Amino acid sequence: MAFTTNATINTMGGKLLKLSHQSSTTGTAMNLNLFIPPGASSSAKAPVLIYLSGLTCTPDNVSEKGFLHAHAAPLGLALLFPDTSPRGLDLPGEHESWDFGSAASFYIDASREPWAAHYRMQSYLTTELPGLVFQNFPELDSGRVSISGHSMGGHGALTLYLKNPGMYKSVSAWAPISNPTQCPWGEKAFTGYLGEDREEWKKHDATELVKGWKGPLNGLIDVGTGDNFYKQKQLLPENFEKAAKDAGVDGLEVRYQEGYDHSYYFISTFGADHVKHAAKFLGLL
Amino acid sequence: MAFTTNATINTMGGKLLKLSHQSSTTGTAMNLNLFIPPGASSSAKAPVLIYLSGLTCTPDNVSEKGFLHAHAAPLGLALLFPDTSPRGLDLPGEHESWDFGSAASFYIDASREPWAAHYRMQSYLTTELPGLVFQNFPELDSGRVSISGHSMGGHGALTLYLKNPGMYKSVSAWAPISNPTQCPWGEKAFTGYLGEDREEWKKHDATELVKGWKGPLNGLIDVGTGDNFYKQKQLLPENFEKAAKDAGVDGLEVRYQEGYDHSYYFISTFGADHVKHAAKFLGLL
Repeated sequence: MAFTTNATINTMGGKLLKLSHQSSTTGTAMNLNLFIPPGASSSAKAPVLIYLSGLTCTPDNVSEKGFLHAHAAPLGLALLFPDTSPRGLDLPGEHESWDFGSAASFYIDASREPWAAHYRMQSYLTTELPGLVFQNFPELDSGRVSISGHSMGGHGALTLYLKNPGMYKSVSAWAPISNPTQCPWGEKAFTGYLGEDREEWKKHDATELVKGWKGPLNGLIDVGTGDNFYKQKQLLPENFEKAAKDAGVDGLEVRYQEGYDHSYYFISTFGADHVKHAAKFLGLL
Repeated sequence: MAFTTNATINTMGGKLLKLSHQSSTTGTAMNLNLFIPPGASSSAKAPVLIYLSGLTCTPDNVSEKGFLHAHAAPLGLALLFPDTSPRGLDLPGEHESWDFGSAASFYIDASREPWAAHYRMQSYLTTELPGLVFQNFPELDSGRVSISGHSMGGHGALTLYLKNPGMYKSVSAWAPISNPTQCPWGEKAFTGYLGEDREEWKKHDATELVKGWKGPLNGLIDVGTGDNFYKQKQLLPENFEKAAKDAGVDGLEVRYQEGYDHSYYFISTFGADHVKHAAKFLGLL
């Protein structure tokens, strides 16, 4: 077993596993949580919904507060909750701000030092992690995977989906950072991880990437109108929606939820819809 | 308004209010959370389920992790989450241990000093708090109230229910401290709050109190068999069950949930059942 099992928790009739492993991609230990629904087995494999968390979070926040597993369990859907960055390093400035460095990887492969050697979350999430998970958990179906995320994790979900056609069956996001080249969070992160070349940044911006998408998007986005980060124009979902429309990309539903904020109260309220969205494209509904 | 509203959060179609007020019973500020379901109004009043939290908790833990409001919202049930002790004092020893003093009131009126002047949670919960809540929130129905709780809060729910026939329509508990005069947690708390007289302790022990109950109990209890506190005999639900049976009290269901622990993963898994149990006796189902 490539993973160390730090906890096994009975919940909703299934099992939540708190796992860690040594990653060759990041050169660090990595944490993740995995929810295995009741009834999953090597002969009845469960499809997987990946959820990427937002700034400051660990895999535990969504496990405790997102309540996605309550909806996934009866459908037979597994949930994979990766961490938001490598852990255990002490790079210069890594822990100084909550929106850069630890818990703020932005799910890209950094090209600038000192980040480039470790902050390789795009490669980790698309290659090493699924390889290890499907090798070690034969009750999970490597051919049926969807992706989702919140805030920075919504950016991660949209961009990994758009960069890797065919890898995921659907995408959804709560309050995603939808146009990071145009907002303060994205400008800070991309400058730090990628340098000053704004053309390079566009390769990691969902609003830029969607312009080249072929076929329906199979996408769902929820944004709360009471979300302070939305009001501060850190999220810019309208830009993503407009770019998709202008490019003739259909299969995208963007919903503005009256008065909802940026918290797990918002995530959990619409969690059933996001789980069902994935389940539909994963052949469970 | 007797309450200060510190936050109003949209969730599950209703509102979660984080409230505080100055209590004349405890002589301190007190915190509570209140979930108001969609559609509640002074002409369509919502019944209320009180949930008493366990050791170390505040009203926020269950609000974030218990997920009871997801099940209460569609039924039109309000949820009241009081705090676990007075706050803001600095009595000798109050903050030294996690199972006595702050966040560990055991929901009784203390008779020993220095606790007696402030640790009056039984009076607070049965008189002052409901008085203020129903006066300030006309959308709540003072005539339809049930009570529930977890661990120390399960002890609180069972004992307040048994001490006050007719005050609540039903009772439920997750992993309750069911026989505190016979377990280390209870012995420590009762010695500290009440003194050495074990006869006095019995007035605050559900297993003793149930012997005098008349009529059906309208009670539901869940206990996880993987709960370390259950294994350590801090909970002793079998003693409560046997005392009820020996006294001829029916209307009690005690369920042992295979492999479940003491955490909010356990609470949330069986939350739907506890909400439905209350809803049935509150006339919602």
